Amino acid sequence: MNKPVFNGERLLDRLKRLGEKGALHGGGVCRLALTDADKAGRDLLVRWMKELGLEVSIDKIGNIWGIREGIEDGPPVMIGSHIDSVATGGLYDGVLGVMAGLEVVAALNDADLRTQKPLAVGAFTNEEGARFAPDMLGSGVHQGALDLDECLATVGIDGTVLGEELERIGYAGNVSVKNLTPAAFLEYHVEQGPVLEQEGIQIGAVTGVQGISWTEYTVTGQSNHAGTTPMAMRHDAGVVAARIACEARAIADEFGPPQVSTVGTFELNPNLVNVVPLEAKLTVDLRNTDNDKLIAAETRLAEAAARFARDEGCKVEARTLARFDPVEFDDALVSRIEQAARDLGHSVRRMPSGAGHDAQMFAPNCPTAMVFVPSAGGLSHNIAEHTEPDDLTAGGRILLNVALELLGE
Amino acid sequence: MNKPVFNGERLLDRLKRLGEKGALHGGGVCRLALTDADKAGRDLLVRWMKELGLEVSIDKIGNIWGIREGIEDGPPVMIGSHIDSVATGGLYDGVLGVMAGLEVVAALNDADLRTQKPLAVGAFTNEEGARFAPDMLGSGVHQGALDLDECLATVGIDGTVLGEELERIGYAGNVSVKNLTPAAFLEYHVEQGPVLEQEGIQIGAVTGVQGISWTEYTVTGQSNHAGTTPMAMRHDAGVVAARIACEARAIADEFGPPQVSTVGTFELNPNLVNVVPLEAKLTVDLRNTDNDKLIAAETRLAEAAARFARDEGCKVEARTLARFDPVEFDDALVSRIEQAARDLGHSVRRMPSGAGHDAQMFAPNCPTAMVFVPSAGGLSHNIAEHTEPDDLTAGGRILLNVALELLGE
Repeated sequence: MNKPVFNGERLLDRLKRLGEKGALHGGGVCRLALTDADKAGRDLLVRWMKELGLEVSIDKIGNIWGIREGIEDGPPVMIGSHIDSVATGGLYDGVLGVMAGLEVVAALNDADLRTQKPLAVGAFTNEEGARFAPDMLGSGVHQGALDLDECLATVGIDGTVLGEELERIGYAGNVSVKNLTPAAFLEYHVEQGPVLEQEGIQIGAVTGVQGISWTEYTVTGQSNHAGTTPMAMRHDAGVVAARIACEARAIADEFGPPQVSTVGTFELNPNLVNVVPLEAKLTVDLRNTDNDKLIAAETRLAEAAARFARDEGCKVEARTLARFDPVEFDDALVSRIEQAARDLGHSVRRMPSGAGHDAQMFAPNCPTAMVFVPSAGGLSHNIAEHTEPDDLTAGGRILLNVALELLGE
Repeated sequence: MNKPVFNGERLLDRLKRLGEKGALHGGGVCRLALTDADKAGRDLLVRWMKELGLEVSIDKIGNIWGIREGIEDGPPVMIGSHIDSVATGGLYDGVLGVMAGLEVVAALNDADLRTQKPLAVGAFTNEEGARFAPDMLGSGVHQGALDLDECLATVGIDGTVLGEELERIGYAGNVSVKNLTPAAFLEYHVEQGPVLEQEGIQIGAVTGVQGISWTEYTVTGQSNHAGTTPMAMRHDAGVVAARIACEARAIADEFGPPQVSTVGTFELNPNLVNVVPLEAKLTVDLRNTDNDKLIAAETRLAEAAARFARDEGCKVEARTLARFDPVEFDDALVSRIEQAARDLGHSVRRMPSGAGHDAQMFAPNCPTAMVFVPSAGGLSHNIAEHTEPDDLTAGGRILLNVALELLGE
C-alpha cells in the first residue's frame, strides 16, 4: 500500500478552474452567496466530489457535503471551508480549504487507502456574510449556534430572502443539519493578514479566532434646506453618523492591537447635495481576541452614538447584525499541526485568526484547528489576494498528514 | 378701467392643482427636473399660460416663457421661478413664483389693462440641482452665466443626460436663450427658512443671495479585510470621508452665522460590512453672504481633506459642482418692495436669502429683487413645507403692485 501524496499541481488546477466562476475583469471573483456565480461554483464542486467517488449530500441550509466511507461507521473527520466570496474577493479565501479537502480525498484514493474513520469534506453556505448577515451562517446553523428557520428567512442587502435564493439555485437540500456529527474539524485557509509574510514564516498553527461584533446604527434626524436652515436649528443625521464613524476609528487607535474597527457601509437618505440628511445608516465591525476588551469597545461606541445623537437632536437605534465571542481551538490538535509542519521542514508559529472562520462554529463541539499560509502583502477581500504555490502545497501536505492521524490508517 | 386685483383664491387653487403632479404619499411632491412628473407639471403650466392668452415659447435649455404684449415693444418685465423640486419637496418652493406670475397676468386680463412694457412669466429648468448639477441651470444659461452646450451634456445622478431628457419629455425648445432681454426681474418665493416666522414679520424684501459652493470629494484608499488588517496598515477611504464631513460641520460652528455647511451625499465602495472601503464620495455644500469668508471656509476644508488623506495614506480629489458668489439685488427695487408692503399694511424686513434662486442669475444684468413670505417652522425641501394662505396672498399683492409700477399703466 502506497503512502498518500498531496498533489499540489491538482490543487492549483482546481483553484484556477473554480476561480473562473464569477471571475472579475482584472482578476479575483465576485461569488456572493447564492448568486448565479455561487451556483456555478457549487455545481463544479459537486461534480468533482462525485468524480472522486464521494457520497454528496446537501443539507437544509445549503451546506454541501462529500463523504468518503471509513472502515468504521460513526462520526467523520471533517475538512471544510466555503466557496462564497465578498463582492471583490480573491481566488483562495475559503476555496483553498475546500479544494485541499478534495485533494486529500484524491490522495487517499490514489493510495487506495481505506481509513478507520469516514472523511467528510464540507462547503458552508454564506461564510462571508457579504450578501446575508450574519457571516459563517451555514456552519453556524450546522453546529446549532444559529437557528435554521431564522437563517432561511434572512433578507439580503439586495432584498432577497436566503431560503428563496437557495431554492432558486437548486441548493435547498433536504438533509437535516444534525445528520453529521464531527469527530474532529480541520480548516485550511489563507491568513488574510500580513503577519506570516512579515515574519517570514510559512505556516500558521491557528490557536483561535478573535471575537467579532457587527452593529448597524440607524440615525434619524430632520431633512431640511441646506442653505436656509441655521446650524443651530439642524437635526443632521449624517453628521451624527460621521461622528460615530470617527469614534469607531478612535476606539481602535486608543485600545491598540489586536482591537480593530471598520465602518464598511455608510448611507444617507435622501442623499442629495442640498438637503440636510433625514436618515443615516452605517455598520461598525469591531474585533478583539479579548472578549472583555471587545465588550468595552462596544459599550464605548454605543454610549458615544447616543451622545452624538442627543447633541444633534436626532434619534439613534443600534441593531446587532452578528456577535461571536473569541474562540479557542483544541490545544492538542494545534500542537499536531505545529509538529506536522516541523516534520515537513516548514517554519511555523502559533497565531490567532483575525478573521472569522467556519472552524470557530465547530470548536465548542469537537477538536478543531486551522492551518494558515501567508497572504502576499496581507491583502484579502481584494482581487489582488495571492499566496505562493509552494505555500499552498506546503499547507496542503500538513493538512493531509494531520487528517491521516485523525482518520487512522 | 378697473384697478387690477390679485385673486388669492385662484393662486391657491393653481398651487393645489400643480401639487398633484408628482404628489408624494403623505404630502409634498417629487418633481425632479425633467422627469415624467416634471413634464406633467410643465404641460399643465403651458395649458394655463395659453388659457390666459400668453404667447408661449420654450427656449433651448427648456425654460418655459409666457409673454403678455405691452403697448411698447422692447424688453419685458419678467416674473419667474421654477416648478422642479427636490426628491422630497414641498408645494410652494419655486411653484409659488410661477403661479403668482400667472395670477398677475390674470389680474391684468380681468382689469382689461394693457401695460406699457410687455410682461414675461418664466419657469426655469432644473433650479434645484437635485437631479442635475449645478442648480439654477436654466436661468444661468438664459443669463449667460452657464454654457448652453455644457449644460445640455450634464449627466444626472441617475446617469441620464440633460439634453436627452429634455428631448424625451418634449421640452427641448428651439428658441434662442438670448431671445428675451429683461427690463427687470421679480421673483416671489417662500423664505425656506425660519427668520420671518420667528420674528413675526409677514414679508421679506430680499437684499441678495448668499454665495454657494458645492464640492464633491472623492477619496481612494485600499480595500482590505476588516478583521486581519492591523489598523496601522490600513488605507481606509471611509475614515477620511467621515473626517471631512466632521470638519465641514466644525467650520460652520467656528465661523458662526451666516456660514452654513451640509454634507448631503456620502457613499462608500464596495459598501460591505467586513471590507475596508476602497473609495468614498461625499459632497459638501458651503454658503456665506461674505465671499471672503466663503473662500476661507473652502480653503480650510480643502486643506483639511488633503491632510486627512495624507494621514491615512489615501488619495483625495475635489471637484467643484457649483460655485456662485454672493449676489446683491437692486437697492431701489428692494425699497419699492418694502414700500409696497407698508402701503398694504404688512410688516416687512430686509433680509438676505439663504438659498440660491433664479433671481441671482438676473441680478448682474437688470434691476432684480425678490419677495419672501414665511415658511412654517422654517421647513423647506421637506414634504411638510407650509405657508399660510394669508401670507401667500399678501406676497402676491405686493408682487402685483411692484410689477404694475415697472410695467407702466
